[in-house]
Amino acid sequence: MDEQAKKTALRMIPYGLFVVSTREGDTVNAFAANWLTQASFAPPLVAMAAKAGQAGTNMLESSGVFCVNVLESGQTQLATKFFSPMERVGNKFGDVEFKLSANGCPILNDALAFFECRVVDKVTRGDHTVFIGEVIEAGVQREGEPLTLAETGFKYGG
Amino acid sequence: MDEQAKKTALRMIPYGLFVVSTREGDTVNAFAANWLTQASFAPPLVAMAAKAGQAGTNMLESSGVFCVNVLESGQTQLATKFFSPMERVGNKFGDVEFKLSANGCPILNDALAFFECRVVDKVTRGDHTVFIGEVIEAGVQREGEPLTLAETGFKYGG
Repeated sequence: MDEQAKKTALRMIPYGLFVVSTREGDTVNAFAANWLTQASFAPPLVAMAAKAGQAGTNMLESSGVFCVNVLESGQTQLATKFFSPMERVGNKFGDVEFKLSANGCPILNDALAFFECRVVDKVTRGDHTVFIGEVIEAGVQREGEPLTLAETGFKYGG
Repeated sequence: MDEQAKKTALRMIPYGLFVVSTREGDTVNAFAANWLTQASFAPPLVAMAAKAGQAGTNMLESSGVFCVNVLESGQTQLATKFFSPMERVGNKFGDVEFKLSANGCPILNDALAFFECRVVDKVTRGDHTVFIGEVIEAGVQREGEPLTLAETGFKYGG
């Protein structure tokens, strides 16, 4: 296989850029992620791949719940804050305010919308774990266009 | 759960719009799909959800190989030709020319790029089957911007 062609072709997949949050007991975590797709209408399922071995991924694996925060076009800088671990101080990650969902996962106040999932299956074959999540809760905080990875100029794929 | 919020939030996930092809023996099939994401760098994996019970999905399930054709911005009409089954006539689906990959899957002459996958895992929980495919071959046919689902105006999600 031509490695350069593989990289170029895979980087042509369009993505969003999300903040995925999770919790375990009273501890919460949130990280940026773009490898996400819906995977079924009924039941509503999504597939989300998160880097194996990361604290957030481990927490998600152990608690089995996560919340996808959909960011808005123009919120690149908000997304970048979740490229490295953020410590919770009260109801904030740094200066980013959140509230807790019914299932205890952080919902960013500035996110466009969110959907919360319960892990029903996972695939642990590569350097990322693929979580199959059933959507159990959702909310729309305001209208707007979602942030795309293309808009941010970042690449994560290939 | 608020069904309207769930639908609105899930439809905020940005996607591409691809033509996924497969084969079984000398029979080939191709269908439009947007529920696709990369899922690992090493090995290179993708997760792709295809509607359960469709002829193309059944063929893919049985042969375990598929090829993702990445379309270019402006090729909405090409994509729509694969919304319903297309019969192969020689090296064409209707008027859409293709060649066969090393593994026998159709590569559309007009696609920007392609990557071919071998199914290594699958999840059959919902109304779509999630195929985890390892990328085994890839090619870039020309430079260009990929087609996004947003550009087409179609919705598939929610």
